[in-house]
Amino acid sequence: MNHQELLDSLYQKIKNKPDKGKVAKYIPELKKINPDKFGVNLFTTTCKSYGAGDYQERFSIQSIAKVLSLTLAINLVGKKIWNRVGVEPSGDPFNSLVQLEFEKGIPRNPMINSGALVVCDILISKLKEPKKEFLAFVRKLANNNTIAYNKKIVASEKAFGFKNTAHVNLMKSFKNIKNEIDEVLDLYYHICSIEMSCEELSKTFLLYANGGVLTHNNERILTVSRTKRINAIMQLCGLYDEAGEFSFKVGLPGKSGVGGGIVAVHPGKYCISVWSPKLNKKGNSYKGFQILEQFTTETESSIF
Amino acid sequence: MNHQELLDSLYQKIKNKPDKGKVAKYIPELKKINPDKFGVNLFTTTCKSYGAGDYQERFSIQSIAKVLSLTLAINLVGKKIWNRVGVEPSGDPFNSLVQLEFEKGIPRNPMINSGALVVCDILISKLKEPKKEFLAFVRKLANNNTIAYNKKIVASEKAFGFKNTAHVNLMKSFKNIKNEIDEVLDLYYHICSIEMSCEELSKTFLLYANGGVLTHNNERILTVSRTKRINAIMQLCGLYDEAGEFSFKVGLPGKSGVGGGIVAVHPGKYCISVWSPKLNKKGNSYKGFQILEQFTTETESSIF
Amino acid sequence: MNHQELLDSLYQKIKNKPDKGKVAKYIPELKKINPDKFGVNLFTTTCKSYGAGDYQERFSIQSIAKVLSLTLAINLVGKKIWNRVGVEPSGDPFNSLVQLEFEKGIPRNPMINSGALVVCDILISKLKEPKKEFLAFVRKLANNNTIAYNKKIVASEKAFGFKNTAHVNLMKSFKNIKNEIDEVLDLYYHICSIEMSCEELSKTFLLYANGGVLTHNNERILTVSRTKRINAIMQLCGLYDEAGEFSFKVGLPGKSGVGGGIVAVHPGKYCISVWSPKLNKKGNSYKGFQILEQFTTETESSIF
Amino acid sequence: MNHQELLDSLYQKIKNKPDKGKVAKYIPELKKINPDKFGVNLFTTTCKSYGAGDYQERFSIQSIAKVLSLTLAINLVGKKIWNRVGVEPSGDPFNSLVQLEFEKGIPRNPMINSGALVVCDILISKLKEPKKEFLAFVRKLANNNTIAYNKKIVASEKAFGFKNTAHVNLMKSFKNIKNEIDEVLDLYYHICSIEMSCEELSKTFLLYANGGVLTHNNERILTVSRTKRINAIMQLCGLYDEAGEFSFKVGLPGKSGVGGGIVAVHPGKYCISVWSPKLNKKGNSYKGFQILEQFTTETESSIF
Repeated sequence: MNHQELLDSLYQKIKNKPDKGKVAKYIPELKKINPDKFGVNLFTTTCKSYGAGDYQERFSIQSIAKVLSLTLAINLVGKKIWNRVGVEPSGDPFNSLVQLEFEKGIPRNPMINSGALVVCDILISKLKEPKKEFLAFVRKLANNNTIAYNKKIVASEKAFGFKNTAHVNLMKSFKNIKNEIDEVLDLYYHICSIEMSCEELSKTFLLYANGGVLTHNNERILTVSRTKRINAIMQLCGLYDEAGEFSFKVGLPGKSGVGGGIVAVHPGKYCISVWSPKLNKKGNSYKGFQILEQFTTETESSIF
Repeated sequence: MNHQELLDSLYQKIKNKPDKGKVAKYIPELKKINPDKFGVNLFTTTCKSYGAGDYQERFSIQSIAKVLSLTLAINLVGKKIWNRVGVEPSGDPFNSLVQLEFEKGIPRNPMINSGALVVCDILISKLKEPKKEFLAFVRKLANNNTIAYNKKIVASEKAFGFKNTAHVNLMKSFKNIKNEIDEVLDLYYHICSIEMSCEELSKTFLLYANGGVLTHNNERILTVSRTKRINAIMQLCGLYDEAGEFSFKVGLPGKSGVGGGIVAVHPGKYCISVWSPKLNKKGNSYKGFQILEQFTTETESSIF
Repeated sequence: MNHQELLDSLYQKIKNKPDKGKVAKYIPELKKINPDKFGVNLFTTTCKSYGAGDYQERFSIQSIAKVLSLTLAINLVGKKIWNRVGVEPSGDPFNSLVQLEFEKGIPRNPMINSGALVVCDILISKLKEPKKEFLAFVRKLANNNTIAYNKKIVASEKAFGFKNTAHVNLMKSFKNIKNEIDEVLDLYYHICSIEMSCEELSKTFLLYANGGVLTHNNERILTVSRTKRINAIMQLCGLYDEAGEFSFKVGLPGKSGVGGGIVAVHPGKYCISVWSPKLNKKGNSYKGFQILEQFTTETESSIF
Repeated sequence: MNHQELLDSLYQKIKNKPDKGKVAKYIPELKKINPDKFGVNLFTTTCKSYGAGDYQERFSIQSIAKVLSLTLAINLVGKKIWNRVGVEPSGDPFNSLVQLEFEKGIPRNPMINSGALVVCDILISKLKEPKKEFLAFVRKLANNNTIAYNKKIVASEKAFGFKNTAHVNLMKSFKNIKNEIDEVLDLYYHICSIEMSCEELSKTFLLYANGGVLTHNNERILTVSRTKRINAIMQLCGLYDEAGEFSFKVGLPGKSGVGGGIVAVHPGKYCISVWSPKLNKKGNSYKGFQILEQFTTETESSIF
């Protein structure tokens, strides 16, 4: 069975199963999405793309964008970033303040909200027009100038983002936020509001499978070493408190978002992206997780 | 030795001892105060006043004002207040977010910052002009129309109050704050900025020693039962994480503030107030604690 | 209404109300007790005793005995005891290990299990025959040589006391337990197994109401200062996580046990003891709490 | 440069650098080891072995043995093991009780002490002679009948293992330990006391690099799926609170022990073992970590 046949077959099989997940409630704008949307795309480092279902329809990539902002920040400040955010798994639900207070305002890793807020603070310190420049960076990775922020999502998240405001204030009290709180939150919500289709998402993340080099023009974005660093962070911290389960069942570095997207990276080979809005109890796409598990099982492509 | 002689004698004795305390650092405006200020005042329910040192000079009463805002809130909403804030000691440093998160946004008591913020939220919901009406209430208790907010202190606290902003946002995320966050914080900082002298402070707190009735005009402000409730809360929660030590050494319900003030209440008999800006490791006035301890020891007036 | 009439009247009134409490499950031997037992006794410092219901039937005083072991330990080592156990409320459920680990093996106060275990360790270090000598001490306070340990209760608690074993091992790892773990636990369970009737319990605790002096022979057991210390500890830490509620509703220092007993002390005046095996959600006797609340309300004898 | 030359070169380079690590203090018997010992061994799935330094001298493998006991337990009870121990990183120092209490006695993963104690409990329930049968299992994997427990190490650890006793009692209170506590601890300390050389360790772990099959006789020990599961657990949880750093710098699943050993697995290719007793701040061999990092960098064999 070739890649396209496999995706089609897995898509059909899982589409018709009951979906035990639930759409995230806390961002009102996201609740408007049709919960039955389901798509999957595979993009190889040899630039071949395979898809099934709603894989060309855009959705809110949410926390998946934290990998992209981390990438830009690492390129701007290098190793110094690790003085302000760690690289270890959190072992806690993703929005807990406990550990952040215990560890004096240093988030455990850049994939949890507090860590991504520190990354935003770094971008603001280093960029003249952070929102504009971040979007330009993403468009370059995606080779697509239509990628954009969704202002409705930004407004919807801001109106209910009290926990994030608590995080950023707590870190400010520990002097680990240097800029104005409102500006940090504004950039954070913009970054999370980016919309992509599964196919665009795979394409954008292809550099992590390709040693840090864009496949469409051979431009190096990250050193090999930094690419490994980011893949390692995704492996250990990318799936909230389900990283262990994902490592076993899917066996690839990956990152999920509350919008129902998950992207996974096979170093040297491919990226695979899925979208299905209903989430399991740990906050990851229920059907998305399933199709990734079956894909890497069928193709025997776990890295372990 | 009568009361005046005793206060004079204790004042002299403790004034000349080395002060191991340190002025609080985190509110810049408070650091401008002369750290050697030291005063004490005793006010009896029979309306006799005795003082020594700087007992007629005003200082920032800070957290002591939390007792007054609690009093007003209890009168406005009655028992329902206990659905939104507890009455048990916290067992934690006074600004910890851990317990608040664990207990889903319900602060353990109204003497810690988070609890006082909920009380402010209640005042805003119930009063048309909360700042004006709260000040009028305090002036009535004090029988003194010159009591006022200090706007410089308000501004200074707001500029560095990131932990309080974190608290109030966390509680908002649990729906235990109903009003706008900025309005809640604004009222909170105004309440904490009230200035009184030791003598004015004793006079204002006399109602808690007098069964809820103002001594100057016999107006009942609180029921007997609510007066006991507030005294019990001061006993268990009024001295941050030093309530046990204070209960043993002073043996009276009391409340301290970061400005270096402490007020203690002997039900049926008197109020005693002290002011000395340098704080011990638990955040309570170093010399203030000492003079209270020696006063209740000499007069054998512990309630235990 | 005199004391006897008041106790009779309150006893009748509360006896006939539905009991919303539940008997503690975790000590099998205690589950054999008739859950409808209910007694109350008042003992004045003038040596008058009043009782109603099952006030002369013995029950397992359990944690109430922690006050007695603390008393003996303070007399043996003085102030040094406070290097190994604190005096502040815990703010946590009574059997939590979290705070103990955070505070490096120093329990917050001697009324929680870990604190009482440290007290046992001190008794073992200072006494030749700890079990025998402790019992002799209690018999002296009670003026009653029939007070005894209940070996069945000891065995029943040992068989299920895994949390206590965890506590004592954790403290040993922080070097805050000096003796053999098994010996510490053996003494602890013996102390908790003491049985008294309400009347015997009131009589035994009378010294705390009487400034440290036994009423039956005027022997001084504690200094006035240490008596106040113990009363302050009971006030702040004696009712697990319900100390604030008890301070308001009853308004006296007190100590409860999982066997359904509560004793409260009015300094200078009396002791009052209650027994009813069904416990409220915080682990304190449901009807016992109620009768104490109504008694101090009727007699206006809150210390606040 | 071939494998042997590379190992020799890295060994010389790192041997002569200053060692910033410190030997673990809490197991007295381990302090007797010469802290300058240093060895490394590479064993390929094609059964070629390369070594440098003290790679044929045995040392206490300590926590590394947790992978072997997990392997045996999975084979005995299958998936049911995950009802009693999780697969997620802990995000906490490896001996913390906090999370264990919060999560009701279910350890986060089988690599932390509490998780390994649950695994021991399972072995006791399923095996007639657990110590004997476990050792036989390890000897089979190692193809070496001289592998043995070190009784002195067992005794030394038992005498100071108060935290482990606390863990196992806490879990027993949550009913997640079924057998006698002393028996569980005895098996645990025996397992940790196993001694191997680097070469024996690599050989023993070769099955995880070889899809679950022993290389010396082609016997299948684990299914492919369970092998991946164990590798994923090592990747996320094998290096205490340094898993993220190890994933980036070494880029392989691995497991460390307090005796100064670390083993890492490259699925499909090889195992590499190191030994150097001085530990970094996170409790992992200082020089061991360095030589692994440089080896995978030189050979470009990170899985990311």
